[in-house]
Formats: sequence, structure tokens, C-alpha cells
Amino acid sequence: MTTAHPNDVHAAWLPPEAFRPVGSRHTLVHGDGTLVETVLGELAEATARHGGTARRTSPTGDPPAGDDRPAPAVPDLVLALTTAGPLPAAVPAELRGPFEAGTAGPLGAEGFALARRDGVTMVLAERPAGLLYGLFHLVRLGESAFGADLPVERHRPAMRRRMVDHWDNVDVHPVMGQVERGYAGGSIFWRAGEARGDLARVRAYGRLLAACGVNAVAVNNVNVHATEAHLLTDRLGDVAAIADVLRPYGIRVHLSVNFASPVALGGLSTADPLDGDVREWWAKVTRQVYETIPDFGGYLVKADSEGQPGPFAYGRDHADGANLLADALTPFGGVVHWRCFVYNHRQDWRDRSTDRARAAYDHFAPLDGRFRDNVILQVKHGPIDFQPREPVSPVLAAMPRTRLAVEFQATQEYTGQQRHVCYLGPYWSEVLGFAPWGAGRPTVAAVAAGVGEDGLDGGLVAVSNVGDDAYWTGHPLAQANLYAFGRLAWAPELDPVAILDEWIDLTFVPSATGDPERLRRTLHELMDDSWRTYERYTAPLGVGFMVRPADHYGPDVDGYEYTPWGTYHFADRDGVGVDRTRATGTGFTGQYPPPWSDRYESLADCPDELLLFFHHVPYGHVLRGGSTVIQHIYDTHFAGAERVAELRRSWAEIATAGLVDPALHDRVTERLDEQLRSAEEWRDQINTYFFRKSGVPDAHGRPIHP
Amino acid sequence: MTTAHPNDVHAAWLPPEAFRPVGSRHTLVHGDGTLVETVLGELAEATARHGGTARRTSPTGDPPAGDDRPAPAVPDLVLALTTAGPLPAAVPAELRGPFEAGTAGPLGAEGFALARRDGVTMVLAERPAGLLYGLFHLVRLGESAFGADLPVERHRPAMRRRMVDHWDNVDVHPVMGQVERGYAGGSIFWRAGEARGDLARVRAYGRLLAACGVNAVAVNNVNVHATEAHLLTDRLGDVAAIADVLRPYGIRVHLSVNFASPVALGGLSTADPLDGDVREWWAKVTRQVYETIPDFGGYLVKADSEGQPGPFAYGRDHADGANLLADALTPFGGVVHWRCFVYNHRQDWRDRSTDRARAAYDHFAPLDGRFRDNVILQVKHGPIDFQPREPVSPVLAAMPRTRLAVEFQATQEYTGQQRHVCYLGPYWSEVLGFAPWGAGRPTVAAVAAGVGEDGLDGGLVAVSNVGDDAYWTGHPLAQANLYAFGRLAWAPELDPVAILDEWIDLTFVPSATGDPERLRRTLHELMDDSWRTYERYTAPLGVGFMVRPADHYGPDVDGYEYTPWGTYHFADRDGVGVDRTRATGTGFTGQYPPPWSDRYESLADCPDELLLFFHHVPYGHVLRGGSTVIQHIYDTHFAGAERVAELRRSWAEIATAGLVDPALHDRVTERLDEQLRSAEEWRDQINTYFFRKSGVPDAHGRPIHP
Repeated sequence: MTTAHPNDVHAAWLPPEAFRPVGSRHTLVHGDGTLVETVLGELAEATARHGGTARRTSPTGDPPAGDDRPAPAVPDLVLALTTAGPLPAAVPAELRGPFEAGTAGPLGAEGFALARRDGVTMVLAERPAGLLYGLFHLVRLGESAFGADLPVERHRPAMRRRMVDHWDNVDVHPVMGQVERGYAGGSIFWRAGEARGDLARVRAYGRLLAACGVNAVAVNNVNVHATEAHLLTDRLGDVAAIADVLRPYGIRVHLSVNFASPVALGGLSTADPLDGDVREWWAKVTRQVYETIPDFGGYLVKADSEGQPGPFAYGRDHADGANLLADALTPFGGVVHWRCFVYNHRQDWRDRSTDRARAAYDHFAPLDGRFRDNVILQVKHGPIDFQPREPVSPVLAAMPRTRLAVEFQATQEYTGQQRHVCYLGPYWSEVLGFAPWGAGRPTVAAVAAGVGEDGLDGGLVAVSNVGDDAYWTGHPLAQANLYAFGRLAWAPELDPVAILDEWIDLTFVPSATGDPERLRRTLHELMDDSWRTYERYTAPLGVGFMVRPADHYGPDVDGYEYTPWGTYHFADRDGVGVDRTRATGTGFTGQYPPPWSDRYESLADCPDELLLFFHHVPYGHVLRGGSTVIQHIYDTHFAGAERVAELRRSWAEIATAGLVDPALHDRVTERLDEQLRSAEEWRDQINTYFFRKSGVPDAHGRPIHP
Repeated sequence: MTTAHPNDVHAAWLPPEAFRPVGSRHTLVHGDGTLVETVLGELAEATARHGGTARRTSPTGDPPAGDDRPAPAVPDLVLALTTAGPLPAAVPAELRGPFEAGTAGPLGAEGFALARRDGVTMVLAERPAGLLYGLFHLVRLGESAFGADLPVERHRPAMRRRMVDHWDNVDVHPVMGQVERGYAGGSIFWRAGEARGDLARVRAYGRLLAACGVNAVAVNNVNVHATEAHLLTDRLGDVAAIADVLRPYGIRVHLSVNFASPVALGGLSTADPLDGDVREWWAKVTRQVYETIPDFGGYLVKADSEGQPGPFAYGRDHADGANLLADALTPFGGVVHWRCFVYNHRQDWRDRSTDRARAAYDHFAPLDGRFRDNVILQVKHGPIDFQPREPVSPVLAAMPRTRLAVEFQATQEYTGQQRHVCYLGPYWSEVLGFAPWGAGRPTVAAVAAGVGEDGLDGGLVAVSNVGDDAYWTGHPLAQANLYAFGRLAWAPELDPVAILDEWIDLTFVPSATGDPERLRRTLHELMDDSWRTYERYTAPLGVGFMVRPADHYGPDVDGYEYTPWGTYHFADRDGVGVDRTRATGTGFTGQYPPPWSDRYESLADCPDELLLFFHHVPYGHVLRGGSTVIQHIYDTHFAGAERVAELRRSWAEIATAGLVDPALHDRVTERLDEQLRSAEEWRDQINTYFFRKSGVPDAHGRPIHP
């Protein structure tokens, strides 16, 4: 087994150089099983490259195949399973004490403990997955794992489920292409109707995911078209092949299914969730799935949403629909991820009383308590659709008796489509840290982790930003979003800037040829604030959209204003924004518990960055920040575009210093050129639009094209 | 040979019933040649159906094959070529006199003379095409051709070239489909990369074209993609097959070619029009074309426009480019149609000095006198792009030493896409009757016909609205546009309402089962004013566009406002319109000769319907019609949509009277439903947009959704 990435693909956060600290040590591995083999394989490759050794204590004590170099009696590093019998004799007495006394546990299915004493570093886990995560943790720590003594540290993932969803089509969709909302080439799983024969890329992907903590992957688009529907039955073998490759990295495979499958695939006349034949069909099909893929994760469903079939056609509700699939999965321990992205996409723009923001809550909150234990409702983090700024979805505070997962979008549909630098860690961190019931009460992270008052966990999900691009994500710097997602799913309290540091240390520093500190500074300059920069030059003050309808890239202020999609800004000559108050608007603020129901309702207390999401205000309205709305629009748009110009200059300077691979530098430069062009286009269109509407000139006399 | 339409295709303006007056007569045909055979074939079929007879006088006097019915000694109808020797003895002396004295001529290549005396109707022509057009004229006249005596009438087409251009792709284009801007199904020539094997449909099409006077067809899209380029060389056989089928109807085939063909097909390193090898290549290829299709019409070229290749790449101009092809065609009598639709489609919307309306004139007017005699510049009738209302292109008055053809768009790209009733006869008639140099001076029709001061003719061209739809044009009533185009190209002075009457008489009346006058009234109600109705509910006062960019259907007021396409309205809170004056705007008015250069320049004199095309005015500006601009917008939009609702009611009433085929009625009903929905959407979006911008309420308090 090789763990090296395919030659033509960027190593991302697992370059061989990052394994030098581990690979130059002498390591003892204690335990067995598939994932322990993976650990051994990683160590074998790293030590072969960097001069260390790796040996196992059981069952055979044999060195990895082909390695006949002598290993010292006392190792530098021990990775041991507590369930594999007594610790090997080579472990120093000083380390045995704390661990054997049981103070390390409980570590759970994926946790590990780490310590260093007297020149030996030890990673202990109860289950093989813990050892794998422990190994990648060591890689992150680098030399600091092998220096001074380290007290015992326990690491357990906050979220049991840390999932990446691929919106990949098997067939090329005539409009959406191979990857719906994909900005990094084709799918790594599928190509032109077929499974890709070569799974090396998928294996490399699994390794990257494991190294940032992801443990579940949905391998096809939630919009399940005709060909994709067959993955559940006659093309299940394609899914099994992917599962086989991801299994060694602790990743379970999930499948998006079409709710109408009993009709489309089973030849039944109905997909009614209460119909006996339908229930039997799902039970039978699910049994076959588990016969083929014993550790199959479960189903992912987009139902009664944007044209996808669902239980509504039969007069049933989402609980009926989700429970149907849940019952089929129960015998095998699988789960249903049932998406809450349900709204009327044929809205009449003339009708101001309908509010798309309300839809998920209105559909799902009344169903709280009716879902089976193995149903997880998957909730987009905001009430609309992955805009660069949205409030947290009120659904996340409305269903105490339901398992809720939070869905993020790593693929940058509305955040620059991997042509703009937009590091989303800070955004996700804000969402995860948001306390719907007020300070001191559970956060969104706690709700997802199940450590809130209900104790029901759902986990974290991201829509993948990965494709068959040589840099995985089109924009090389967009890799950080996938990395940060995994890390935040494991430990939501992490500082997103610190995560970026980890990512830089792994991805760039090991191969940097010049001054790594300068490279680090420049990357932080480009990325730390990039989400807020993107926000500055796009739709203002939380109002959202204003993107081109066809592809969601670039500005079109009125692009959605008179469409059926429910995404409006209502700008007229006097003001702008959506009145979602209870007093005079759609009442959406009432979907939040206090204190947010009141803060959002109040024009005075509403956070500036969400003002136009919740209120329609005159252009002269003075923000909490002191500026008028119209002047704020001008100021942020000039500032945002100017900031991109600065970053482009900084990146250009890095080239002359020779700090990064020239090909990668070129790729980022090409994207920054486009980002600047696009940011200036956003600036000019937004400023012109609002100048034409308001007639208010810029207080600083900067150029606005009338 | 059968002239019947294929069974599943609507007969359009040639239903068998329309041939009853001719087909029930005893006819003598004098002459021979391909087109005389066509005439005989038509007569054979008509007389077999309706009880008459058809005989030829020469060369054999044999009856048409299979017809052994006795013919009377004295015919009812004689169709005779003056070049086929002495008139047959059966022609009454009373008719011989006027014709034999030569008073009928000259009739030219396509003209005919008609008279009736003492129970015999006579059609005389110098060339076979004239007999064919004469026959179809008789069909139009119906019984009135066989009643009272008719004095000698001479008919000659005003335009020598009456051409239909098909924007049909051979391959299905991923965005534009099989027919670019086609709203009537697939192509009748091509399907999925191949020529359609069955040419019966093409033959039926040629027959319809001949019956309305069209004599040239371009068989492929002016955007010549990779596959289509090969029609010129290795796939020329496909074109020849079409030519073979259209030839019996007097129609010559033209081909759209790619200017870069010497590179793409010939393997040369350049397509430079002044390069010797390039000239030789075109000469050789053109010779091969004529060896295969001896009556080939010529080339049609879109060059240096919207991404198509052209002479600019080699530092040459349009005259160099067009003359290159002209020289290759000269030995064979072919012509180049070189399109003047050239403009910068990557314009910066911030740049108010660039004006797309100016582009064709700026590019071409300076080249007047430099084109070969067999180059025809093909000019879109308006300066922008087939909007529902545009002024006449100033190019048509700017090139006295150049042959100019006027291009219309029968396919309803911007006029409702054959989902809306929009009879374009009145629009085209206005354009043809427009006198660029003022009353009493030549009209646009005269320029195209070559009867103006220069004497150089170009002809009339329409982009076809025909596809493989069973009704030919999707909307059955859209057939009238193709019919009217042919008739106006033959006789531009015809009243478009009278043309509609002809069309109704041919298409509907022969098979009407109830009260044909009621049907006629209803069709006139639906169609006479339909173009102006469409104008009322779409973009106001000549400003144009405001359509959805993706498909050009339905409203999107700002859809093009910040794009590179050069089509803007500049609406702000104070006013709307494009300042194209010399005094303060782009100077476009200066491209017209007096008096229009002054009328358009003057805010007081500019016609209301073009006000916003030429001027940017405040919403309170009072039109010549007495209304303010903003109130006019509200009034016309309410009126336009209401009118569609009325028409829909009228059409519904026709059904109960059983006056038209139920399937056709259903098709029109379905389209009217969509037209009403769309018209109301236009009304509401336009009214809301301008209310939001202007803040001015409707004077009559009608509902505008804020």
C-alpha cells in the first residue's frame, strides 16, 4: 500500500516533508486491525523516507514488509491500543503509571491520549481510529511532540459525526455539470456516467480527510437524478468500491437517495411512506446495501425541495418520510440525514408576506419529537442559503427532541467560487459559537455535538469543495476551508486563525525554501480576514444575494429581485432591506428564542452586519457603527476592493522571495487577478446601483459611475 | 412527385382546399424546364383532387402521367412561357393581342402578367420562375381569377433577392441548441450532427417559400461552429441534397461560412484576405462548390462579431474580407452576404461614450465604394438588435455606392419567442416605408430594391422562424410572419393588414366550417395590432432590452444594465433613457441625414415611441402625446396586459363556434395563456421597477406592487 498522493496532485496538508519529525523516530505500534494497519503503513512510508523505524508488538512483532533495518530497544514513540493486551515492555515505567491507572480514559471510539516522558512519546487509544487520529495529531505537532515532557492530554472529537457531502453527479448534468456547485474540476468519484476506475485519488482524499478529522462522506449529489438513483441498487458496487478505499481511513460512506426510488427503481406505484410495500421495499434494499457494505453510514435525503420528490405528494410530512428510511436502517445502525432546506421556490415576488427565511422552521419545528432516534435533521447554518452573511438558523434552537446537524458549505458557491480567497473558518467559528438562548447557554456547537440540554447529537456537515483539480480545490488556498471544517468539527472551540497556522505549518512550511515566517505572515494577511473582505465588497449589511442568477458568481443587484426564489432586497429610492420583524414585517424574528428574538426585532439593537436582513431602513439610517447605511455601502465597497488590490501586491512580492512553488504561486496569482477584477466590478455595480436609487453622493467624493 | 405536405405537418398557407379554384379548371401549360415541371406537378395534384385537367402544349402534349381524363378543346386557364414558341392555338384571339404585341413585358426573370378575357385566364412569363409565381398568385386570387374579365396586370418582385436565413446548427449547440434562437423545435435540415435523411419536409418548406415569394435560403447558422464549417468542403453533399430539393421551387441555396476556414479546413497558417494562398484556397473551394451545386447562391458571413473570426485579426478591414470571398464567387455569379452586425460586445458599462448603436455605421460607412459588385452588406433593420422598437439603421442611408440588404428577424427572439402573438408585418412595413432623407425621397425599400438613387440592389433577408414543429413555427399564428416577409420582399408597398387577409384566406378560410367572416375578424383582432400590444407591455418608449439575459424571454429590467453588451437604459431616481444626441450624448443622431438627424436630436420633435432611444429624460417629461413618461409607462403596461386578456377571451369564444381545427385552437390557447402570464409579469416588473425608482404613484391608483 502506498500512501503517497498521485504524482500530479498537490499533497495539500500531507506533504511527505511534514512527516519528518515522526518519520525520523523509532516507533512501536501495539494493536491490530484495519486502521492499525493504516497507521503502520503511514509510519513505514515516513520512516523509510526519513530514517526512523516502525515496529509492531503484536500479533507477530514482524517489522513492516521490506524493512530490515535494526530498531533500537527503546523506542521514541509508542502508539498503543489499550484493548490489545498489556502494554509492551519497551514502554518506560514513567509512562505506564498514568495510563495504566486508567486516567487516560474514557477515550471513546475515536479519542486518544498523548503524553511524553523521559524521551518517549506515547499515544494511547481504546479503538484503532483513535490511534490513526493520534498519528495525524503527532504530524501536526511536529518536533514539539518530541521535545520537552508533555503532560497527559486527552483528545476526543466534539462531534461524533463529521461529514463531507459531495454534490457530485454520476452523469454530467446538462446545466450543473459533473459537480453541482463545484469549482475544482470534475468529480473524484465519477466521470461521465461511470465510476472512475482509478481509486488512488479517492484514497489520497480519504487520507487528507482523516488527517483533519472527517469520518463520513456522502458520495453523490443530494439532487439525485436518474442515473444516480441506481447507486442504491444495481450500481451499489460503485459505492462499495469507494467504501473499500475510504474504510482504512476511518471514513464511512453515505449515499444520497431519491425519495421516489420505490417507484423509479422498484416498480411500485407509490412511494408513500406509510404504504406497506414501500416500507418493505426500503427494508429489502437497505438489507442488500448492508450485505455489500457492512459499515455503510446511511442515507442522505433532500425531499420536497426545489423539485425533488418527497412525502408531500402523498399527504405525509417530513417525519413520516424520514422515519420510513430510519426504520429500514435501524437494524444495521445506519442513520438518515434529512435535509431541512425546504422552501417554496415558486414564490410570487409581489407577495411580501411569504418569507423564505421562515420556511425551514415553519416546516420542521412543529415536528419536533416525531423523528426516530436515527434521524438527523441536517440544517443549513443560516435560514436562507449559504450567503456570506446570515443569522444562525432558528431551527437550531427550536427542536430540543430532535438530532440536529449543522450544514456548512465549503464549496464557495456564494463566497467567490474558489476564484476569490475566502477563508471560511472565522464564519463557521462565529456560527458554532453563537448562543441562541443567550450568553452562558448552549452554543450551536453544543447543539450539534449533543452536549446541550437535550443530549441529542447530530454533528457537522460540509458540502465539499474538492474536485479532480491538481490542487484539489481549484484555488490552492481554498484547501484551508476543508481543513478548517474538519478541525472545527473535531474541536469547535479552536481559534480559526490558529487552525490556519496549523494548515500553513503542514502545507507550506515543510517545503519552504526561504523565510517561512514571511510566508506565514503573507498567508495570514491574505486569508485571516478574507471572508470579511469578501463580505465588504459584495451584498451589504446581511441583505444577501445580489448575485447573477445563472451561476451565482459576480454581481447582479436586481438579479433575483423579481424572481420566484424568495430572495429579495426591496431597494427603492428611499431605502433597502427586508422587514422581518414581528411588528411590521414577516415575523421571522419571532422564530428565535430570547434574547435574539428581541435583539433582531429592535432596530437599535440589531447587529449592523445583519441590519438589512431584518429591517427595511432609509438610506440615511445611522448604523450602530456611526455611519449612514448609504455611506457604509460606499465605504465598505471601496475598502473591500482596495484591500484585494493590496493582497495582490503582497502575494506578488512573495514570488520574488521564492517562498512557494512557482506553479502554485502562479495559480494563486491568476485567481487574485480575477478576484480583483470581480471585486472592482462588485464595488462599481453596487455603488452605482445605490447611487442611482438614492441620489446620495459619496461623502468623500470618490468615483461612482452614474 | 408529390407536392402534398407530410401528413403530420400543418399545410400552412397551402392547404389542398386552397387549390380548388385552380384545380377545378382546365389548364394548358406552354413551356418546359424544371420549374414548368413543378407547375405541372402542382396542377396535376390539384386537378386530380378538384376535378379539373392540366395539359401541356409542348414538347409532347402528353397529359401528366396517369391522367387520362378528357380535356376540353378550350381551356379555362393558360400558363405560358413567351420563350416557348408561338402561343398554343387554344388561346383565344382576344388574349393573344395584348400579349403578343409585347405589352406584357418586360417581365424579367421572375415576373408574370395576368389577364382574363372571355372565360379564359392567362398567365404569361418570360422565364419558368414567373409561371410558378403566377400559379401561386392564382391560388391567392382564388375564384376571383375566374370570374369577370381582368385587365392585364404585371407582377414583378421589387427585390431581386428575397432570402431566408436559417440559424440552424448541424450539431446541437450546448447552449443554443439545434436552432439558435429557434422557437419551433429542431432544424428541418439537420439533426444531431447529421443531415436529415428525409427531405420531404424541406420540399414542403420550399413550396411554402415559393408561394410567398422567397427565392433564397441560407441553410446554416451565421455562427459557424466546428462541424458546420465542413459544409463548405467535405460535407458539401449535404448542402447539395438540400439544393436539389429546393431548386424546383426556384430557390437557391446559400451557405454561412467561417472566415477562418482556410486555417480550420485548409490547413493554412493564416486566413489573411490579402494572402495569396488564402485567395487561392477560397478560389479552389468555391470552384468545387459550383461543380457540385451549379446554381449555388453564395456565401453568408458574420465576421469579427461576437467572437466570430474575421479580417481584423490580420489588420485588414471588412472590405478586404468581403472582397476576398467575392472574388472567389465572381466567376460563377455568386454573391457574398456580409453582415454589418459588428460591435464591441465587451464594452465597459461604466463608459458612457461608447454607443453600440453607432457601431455598424462607424465600421462600415467609411468603407462605402470599396466593396466588389457582388458583395451585399446585410444590415439589421435597426442599429441594435431586432428590438420590438428601434429606429432604422443609419447605415441604410450612408452607403450609396454599396449594395445593401435589410435583415429582419422572423424568429421572435425579442418579440415573444413564438409564445406571444406578434405579427411583425406592420413593423417591417414601417421600416420599409421609412424615408431616411425625408418625405418624397427614397425609402428603405427603395434602397434595398436598388431603385433608389444609387441603383444598387441588395434585397431583403429574414432570419427564419421555422423548425420541425408540426405547425412549422411553434405558434400557428407566427406562420403569418414568414408569409408576410415573403410578400413584402416581393411587394414592399403592400398593406400588412391586407397581407394578413391573404394569409387568412389561404390558411383558414378554405377549411373553415362555420362563419369564416367571424374567424377572419377574430384573427385580425388578435394579430393586426399585436406588435404594438407587445411593445406596450415590454420595454417602454424605444429603450429596448430589459429582457432576461440568459434567453431573452421575459422581463429583467436591469438584466443588461451592468453587462458588457452595450444595451443600457440608465434609469435612476430622476429619469431614464439613453442620450444619443450630438449636443450632450453619444452623437448617434449625427449618423442620420437630415431631416432625421435633427428630428431625433430634438427633444420636442423626436417621435414618442423612440424618445428613450435617443434621449435621457426626467420621469415628469411630457410626451408629444400629452402624458408624462412615468404615467405613459404605467398606462401602456396596464393597457398592454389587459389587451392580451381580451384577446384570450376572444379566442376562447372561437372554439365554441367550431371555426378552426381543435388541435390548432388548443395550441394557440396554450400560447395565449402563457402570453397573458408573461404580459402580466412584464407589466408588474416594469411598473414596480419604475415606481421604486421614481416614487411617482399611478395617477389612476391601479395596483403597483411596491
